[in-house]
Amino acid sequence: MPRIIVEVMPKPEILDPQGKAIASALPHLGFTDFSGVRQGKRFELTVEGEVTEQVLESARTAAAEMLSNPVIEDVISVRVDEDAA
Amino acid sequence: MPRIIVEVMPKPEILDPQGKAIASALPHLGFTDFSGVRQGKRFELTVEGEVTEQVLESARTAAAEMLSNPVIEDVISVRVDEDAA
Repeated sequence: MPRIIVEVMPKPEILDPQGKAIASALPHLGFTDFSGVRQGKRFELTVEGEVTEQVLESARTAAAEMLSNPVIEDVISVRVDEDAA
Repeated sequence: MPRIIVEVMPKPEILDPQGKAIASALPHLGFTDFSGVRQGKRFELTVEGEVTEQVLESARTAAAEMLSNPVIEDVISVRVDEDAA
């Protein structure tokens, strides 16, 4: 079934303790190429039937209203998952 | 600075309580186009200097060893963020 991918990240100015914790742990494990890490969320929405523009718009609204907290997060992208059968 | 995006999702056979909770809430808020929701993680790794194949390989290893739990999660993709300046 077709899927829509929604990606949500913390706003750049917002403190990201999880990302900071990972960024400080990476060098200790030998990963020295990365100067920063930020952690966000990725959602897969399974769609009944076809992904029409109306369904995509509904996903955008759900992303803004339910899947993210607009005070601290940005919806980075809402796109059709080309890999989904 | 260049960035690498790492996407991690729960394995299909693994129960995803967060995804289930969202999927059951969506219709109550008027979003009726979606039959399922799964929630995973999205990481942005900021890279010092250029993203060479060696740096990308290092990101793949970090994704498998640190950014995901191989027992319950799959690394969906590790890619260069084309939008990053």
